[in-house]
Amino acid sequence: MFFHRQELQHKAVPDQPDAVYARKLQEVLGGQYGEISVAMQYAFQGWNMHLPGKYRDLVFGIAAEEFGHVEMLATMIAQLLEKAPLGITEDAVQSDPTVAAVVGGTDLQHAIVAGAGARPVDSMGNPWSGSYITASGNLLADFTSNANAEMQGRLQVARLFHMTDDHGVRDLLKFLLARDTMHQNQWIAAARELQEEGMEKLPVPSSFPQRKEHTEVSYQYINFSDGDRAGDGSWASGRTPDGNGEFTYVEAPGTAPTSPMPPPTRPDSRFFGTTDLPNAVEKVAGEVQDKLHRE
Amino acid sequence: MFFHRQELQHKAVPDQPDAVYARKLQEVLGGQYGEISVAMQYAFQGWNMHLPGKYRDLVFGIAAEEFGHVEMLATMIAQLLEKAPLGITEDAVQSDPTVAAVVGGTDLQHAIVAGAGARPVDSMGNPWSGSYITASGNLLADFTSNANAEMQGRLQVARLFHMTDDHGVRDLLKFLLARDTMHQNQWIAAARELQEEGMEKLPVPSSFPQRKEHTEVSYQYINFSDGDRAGDGSWASGRTPDGNGEFTYVEAPGTAPTSPMPPPTRPDSRFFGTTDLPNAVEKVAGEVQDKLHRE
Amino acid sequence: MFFHRQELQHKAVPDQPDAVYARKLQEVLGGQYGEISVAMQYAFQGWNMHLPGKYRDLVFGIAAEEFGHVEMLATMIAQLLEKAPLGITEDAVQSDPTVAAVVGGTDLQHAIVAGAGARPVDSMGNPWSGSYITASGNLLADFTSNANAEMQGRLQVARLFHMTDDHGVRDLLKFLLARDTMHQNQWIAAARELQEEGMEKLPVPSSFPQRKEHTEVSYQYINFSDGDRAGDGSWASGRTPDGNGEFTYVEAPGTAPTSPMPPPTRPDSRFFGTTDLPNAVEKVAGEVQDKLHRE
Amino acid sequence: MFFHRQELQHKAVPDQPDAVYARKLQEVLGGQYGEISVAMQYAFQGWNMHLPGKYRDLVFGIAAEEFGHVEMLATMIAQLLEKAPLGITEDAVQSDPTVAAVVGGTDLQHAIVAGAGARPVDSMGNPWSGSYITASGNLLADFTSNANAEMQGRLQVARLFHMTDDHGVRDLLKFLLARDTMHQNQWIAAARELQEEGMEKLPVPSSFPQRKEHTEVSYQYINFSDGDRAGDGSWASGRTPDGNGEFTYVEAPGTAPTSPMPPPTRPDSRFFGTTDLPNAVEKVAGEVQDKLHRE
Amino acid sequence: MFFHRQELQHKAVPDQPDAVYARKLQEVLGGQYGEISVAMQYAFQGWNMHLPGKYRDLVFGIAAEEFGHVEMLATMIAQLLEKAPLGITEDAVQSDPTVAAVVGGTDLQHAIVAGAGARPVDSMGNPWSGSYITASGNLLADFTSNANAEMQGRLQVARLFHMTDDHGVRDLLKFLLARDTMHQNQWIAAARELQEEGMEKLPVPSSFPQRKEHTEVSYQYINFSDGDRAGDGSWASGRTPDGNGEFTYVEAPGTAPTSPMPPPTRPDSRFFGTTDLPNAVEKVAGEVQDKLHRE
Amino acid sequence: MFFHRQELQHKAVPDQPDAVYARKLQEVLGGQYGEISVAMQYAFQGWNMHLPGKYRDLVFGIAAEEFGHVEMLATMIAQLLEKAPLGITEDAVQSDPTVAAVVGGTDLQHAIVAGAGARPVDSMGNPWSGSYITASGNLLADFTSNANAEMQGRLQVARLFHMTDDHGVRDLLKFLLARDTMHQNQWIAAARELQEEGMEKLPVPSSFPQRKEHTEVSYQYINFSDGDRAGDGSWASGRTPDGNGEFTYVEAPGTAPTSPMPPPTRPDSRFFGTTDLPNAVEKVAGEVQDKLHRE
Repeated sequence: MFFHRQELQHKAVPDQPDAVYARKLQEVLGGQYGEISVAMQYAFQGWNMHLPGKYRDLVFGIAAEEFGHVEMLATMIAQLLEKAPLGITEDAVQSDPTVAAVVGGTDLQHAIVAGAGARPVDSMGNPWSGSYITASGNLLADFTSNANAEMQGRLQVARLFHMTDDHGVRDLLKFLLARDTMHQNQWIAAARELQEEGMEKLPVPSSFPQRKEHTEVSYQYINFSDGDRAGDGSWASGRTPDGNGEFTYVEAPGTAPTSPMPPPTRPDSRFFGTTDLPNAVEKVAGEVQDKLHRE
Repeated sequence: MFFHRQELQHKAVPDQPDAVYARKLQEVLGGQYGEISVAMQYAFQGWNMHLPGKYRDLVFGIAAEEFGHVEMLATMIAQLLEKAPLGITEDAVQSDPTVAAVVGGTDLQHAIVAGAGARPVDSMGNPWSGSYITASGNLLADFTSNANAEMQGRLQVARLFHMTDDHGVRDLLKFLLARDTMHQNQWIAAARELQEEGMEKLPVPSSFPQRKEHTEVSYQYINFSDGDRAGDGSWASGRTPDGNGEFTYVEAPGTAPTSPMPPPTRPDSRFFGTTDLPNAVEKVAGEVQDKLHRE
Repeated sequence: MFFHRQELQHKAVPDQPDAVYARKLQEVLGGQYGEISVAMQYAFQGWNMHLPGKYRDLVFGIAAEEFGHVEMLATMIAQLLEKAPLGITEDAVQSDPTVAAVVGGTDLQHAIVAGAGARPVDSMGNPWSGSYITASGNLLADFTSNANAEMQGRLQVARLFHMTDDHGVRDLLKFLLARDTMHQNQWIAAARELQEEGMEKLPVPSSFPQRKEHTEVSYQYINFSDGDRAGDGSWASGRTPDGNGEFTYVEAPGTAPTSPMPPPTRPDSRFFGTTDLPNAVEKVAGEVQDKLHRE
Repeated sequence: MFFHRQELQHKAVPDQPDAVYARKLQEVLGGQYGEISVAMQYAFQGWNMHLPGKYRDLVFGIAAEEFGHVEMLATMIAQLLEKAPLGITEDAVQSDPTVAAVVGGTDLQHAIVAGAGARPVDSMGNPWSGSYITASGNLLADFTSNANAEMQGRLQVARLFHMTDDHGVRDLLKFLLARDTMHQNQWIAAARELQEEGMEKLPVPSSFPQRKEHTEVSYQYINFSDGDRAGDGSWASGRTPDGNGEFTYVEAPGTAPTSPMPPPTRPDSRFFGTTDLPNAVEKVAGEVQDKLHRE
Repeated sequence: MFFHRQELQHKAVPDQPDAVYARKLQEVLGGQYGEISVAMQYAFQGWNMHLPGKYRDLVFGIAAEEFGHVEMLATMIAQLLEKAPLGITEDAVQSDPTVAAVVGGTDLQHAIVAGAGARPVDSMGNPWSGSYITASGNLLADFTSNANAEMQGRLQVARLFHMTDDHGVRDLLKFLLARDTMHQNQWIAAARELQEEGMEKLPVPSSFPQRKEHTEVSYQYINFSDGDRAGDGSWASGRTPDGNGEFTYVEAPGTAPTSPMPPPTRPDSRFFGTTDLPNAVEKVAGEVQDKLHRE
Repeated sequence: MFFHRQELQHKAVPDQPDAVYARKLQEVLGGQYGEISVAMQYAFQGWNMHLPGKYRDLVFGIAAEEFGHVEMLATMIAQLLEKAPLGITEDAVQSDPTVAAVVGGTDLQHAIVAGAGARPVDSMGNPWSGSYITASGNLLADFTSNANAEMQGRLQVARLFHMTDDHGVRDLLKFLLARDTMHQNQWIAAARELQEEGMEKLPVPSSFPQRKEHTEVSYQYINFSDGDRAGDGSWASGRTPDGNGEFTYVEAPGTAPTSPMPPPTRPDSRFFGTTDLPNAVEKVAGEVQDKLHRE
């Protein structure tokens, strides 16, 4: 169950309206790595989790905070739009390019659809999609996904920070930056704890027995590009991070064994695919197959 | 530039056709964490990268391999579909439920649209989307995203492994499992190397000065759920993974300071939003604003 | 701010697993009119609202409840999936069509992607989309949208009610049906109250002065089909619901005045559209325009 | 069957080109509540309707008119684009910011893809989607959806009206405003008539027996937010609009009974979800299950 | 303007219901190459066309017919669904696998969302999208697109023809096959006529002067794969179809000249991308740039 | 298998940065007819092809080249973005409209999401979708699709050519124009060769026996619009392009035979659709059906 309180976790009041910046802020509200994404991702991880206790408490605890971040951003966006221009006529463009310039940078649906309100979309107007989130039931994989989401999120907020001078907006962003710092650290700590407790290990999923995979290529770097420094990194020689092997380096093409392509498929002639038989023969074949099939 | 060779990295021939399983395999071909996603993700990371050398060689090297994985899976799917039933009439359902059962589990577009061929979609038929990939220019964030993609990918292949007894299919999956093991390890190694070389650190992005964020909440866990074990983990006390602070734990609600919601916005009356003025007054206000605007 | 409590508003435990039904339930979790839609719709209406007080309290109050409904459904789906078959091999299809039949009806991503967990998608696997929601700032329009959402939602739950005999599932659906009854009534009551208080009237938006529209066709039913009973309804004669006019009925075609199509457009020849000039002339025209443009 | 006549229902000729406004008009052509949506929605309602006569004649009659509205808007957009700039080079930006300002506000695909033509997209370039429409077979629900669509549509046209001074454009909008006035009134009249004839009642669907729902919460407003005026409205006390009950008001949290969350699920270990068993035990369990499954 | 008549172009009555087949038919109603696509594609081509007369009359004439095809298919689907099972409980699956098998193959939204009605989606449940259509303003390109659409459409109907024995359904498909035959021929004839009249030629767009392209590679086949028979076709030697050149064949890699990749980009340090400077230096650089920017 | 070489097929270096143009170029990288589309389309055609040899070698050869075109465009876009403004504050808008004007025309995700890098989207920010491609297994249909893709692609590049004066950009576009010329010619040549070899003929699919379609309407142009010149073209009289018939022309409405609409469907009353029975009767009917169903 969720309860709502009509307060914000942090002050969210801009110094002045800025409809162009309102659109930019949509990215961290409704984008791939926006607050809707993390709120929904952590909530679904909680609902799909197979064990009670500290890990589940953690995902629920942060999920609920993130729904509050959605609210802070939506509130901020509505205020940035409060004086949004209704739109500018051609005449205005002629006489005041400054005003016209603003229009080009706004989210037109902010005005036409939402009447100067926030929307569940990103900065280019793409609606938020359920396909953005990850909740696989495997916590090491999912906490790595969460760490990435917080990294990308903090990166985007940092970029947005330098796209405004508004002290009110920057104040909110400073708060979000700090929370992203916290959450990055938390998911990394949680991923470590899973491994230290022996609940999950690398490679994910560690309960799948590695001897069932083709282990001869489990630690072999086959370079399919021609970059000659690809072999210099710690990913090409030395002990592997999972502790189970040694990296080796193979320069493709030619050195790694390959397999010939299997012959092309020849499905039922009534799919009417093109084959190496002349068309007339295909037509007869289809008729025969159809007759056979119906008797 | 990319060059194609009509060979496969590993044998991809099923023992027998299985149109239902062909649909399942689409998940790791064209799903959120399928091979198209990793191929495109690594390629875009290469094109967006701001430094030459080993890191760029790495992403290009793996990207090109992943395009080959797309090909292996597409080839396998086409063969699994080679004897795909054209479809079953009601009569067949009555007389042979076994055959009918198969139909329910197939991707209908495999038959109707592709004529027994592979498609750029996931196991539920959603087309692959450019919104699946991540290429931010910040390598620590992106390599974490890559590690997650390989974890989710290996997890899905491991699940698919247990959904078939076909030796040919399992042979290919064993190969893919091994390559996912390798790539997980490589991205983790690369993420470490970035940090050891001092190029990137936690929290991402580390070149954004942390003193600019609201540091008083940078390491504070505020629990917005009522799970009482949320404070037990290493994410609630002790040194933070980025080495810059100490975790603290705050039980919400009530203990953390909050801010009142700002008053509702009152945009231009010609957006026709509902306000606390009676409708008649709003109408006059809109007229006045319109007149003012046009003079 | 949102707070989460690890309790459910109503019991959500099925008598037994049923992976096929789990997929069906996704419709009212993540479909166009599912619980995510209403939760997000009401929340955005709150954030975009231009007046404080009872209407805003109402949308926030129901929004938070609906997030809890998402949780009940996700919890139920996870339990219905608890014994989900990992997948069935061809051999199993041969020997046990019953089991195979089940597979055809499941959401494959429940197994492959979520590891027997719920997902933010509808019953056909389409991810939830931000384009499902409505929050325009005009409360009479939006409350009508809300009433519709609750009607469609209750209709879908009523259909789902008859697709299962499971007492645990039906118990949850009985609860959701009752809440949809409540919310339908509430939005209708709220829409009426807006009108009774004179804040909004028909036609929406009522603060737009009706004299500015082409009033000669404001209450004229022009029938563009040939159904001869179209004129029998209360929508074709008598007083209009907004109280501002009388319906009239016009049988098209022929009786209503029309306008000729304007002549086709002739944009810049460098868009290379086909015109009635011969290709060679177009080519020269393009060259000339290009030269002019650059001088 | 549909027949096309090369005339327009109303004149659609702008005074002058305006590529920026052409983009804005796309919202009411191809947006969520644009003319394609209502045309398709009413048509599908006709095809899915379970009774002949006046209601079906009504939906077909308006559907066909709306396809004509799509045409009027597409025609208008093409003319607004007739002098659309091909695009502006950096040099032009330097020397003439006015022209450059225009470019920022245009739909780039109007130029690059359609060669100065209309497109089936909204004002932010999202393609029209079949997920926008509603045709459930229950007419009271669907007519409520239709009323909402016409309200949102008229609201958007009213906003667009104030974003231009062009007399030709405004003339067309005045016509569309009037038709939206008509259609709002018609759907409201039709919804009433359904109820007066006893064919449908509240709550929708009224043929589902209300005694099957958990009637103890059918008319109870449980406020999950802390807005203290939520109880003031006609939705919190008094007779309910469906005439079947009395509203009551309950302040959450704490006062309404709840249910504990069920224990987390423990699906087949070969889904490789994280559980509270150590990883090594899980691995063995998976192997055992796999062996059992195959014998 | 469009007018609707409550008749069908051809009889559309199935011998008996078949909910599984109803789903399959959705492909040619709402899929990429379904009837909605061609109706909308031809209509938009008409609205975007730059010349009056026979070509525009042609696209409008066929567009209107195709809207009628949408109607025939929707009508047929509703009838195929008339006895659609409401859904099957687990018990039914145990006792009657035949019935259960049917359920797996149905479109669940046909039942839950549309109440046994048609929907604007394809056979896998993806909603129809505006991104399926093409209307560029260049008629030779667009008529080629139309020819393709009719080819893909007829191919899909031919496949569907063999997926049913129902005489009523097959009767409708025979009609659609004939119309697709007609329309294929018409678009090919129209494309030829454009060329014969000198209005458009190959390569499209022919009014772009070919001397402005890098003509040294205009007719050179550079084979980026290793298929040794790629040079055998009429696309590798001899006169080119546009009549302007001679095909030549080059075996890549190595023989065609290439260009080195340009050095990686180094954007503003406040994008926080990873570069070859140590992190600490980047941080200072960002601060400096920020200060400079603000003064 | 694919191999990557860190070279470009042609030089891709702009004279100077231009963030607005970078967005425009996205259309031919990630749009419906961009390079990702053709690369993926040809590759899937290869994987789905049912015959070895020259046709398959052709699609693989061009597919691999197109992946290299994606790379050239991504590389170019990254350079055009190299000096992309981080974003402009309101202050800057006031003082320098020129700079502000630029911002309105940029892809905001280029800055916020990709840190001045390329993205897999079109010029309006829509992510690339798997639904853009075509690979049906029927080569005459698919090569026609390919010819169309190259035509639309060349058309878009030609339009983009006139939207810049940058010599570096134009140099790359000249190269792409030439390659599109080549590929148009190749697909047309290949489509002809298929027909000359008797492997496929018109109408597609030619192996479906034409006598099974309703041949009485196979060559009849039924004009559903009122354009009086529709009968003047070579598509309305004379020999048909497939050589199998003669075009005839019928003016609708009225002259072509039609069929009455079948009566509306009456599905199971537990779908709660509206029928012509009063609501109370429906309710009882539903109860009875439910009881019957469960016994």
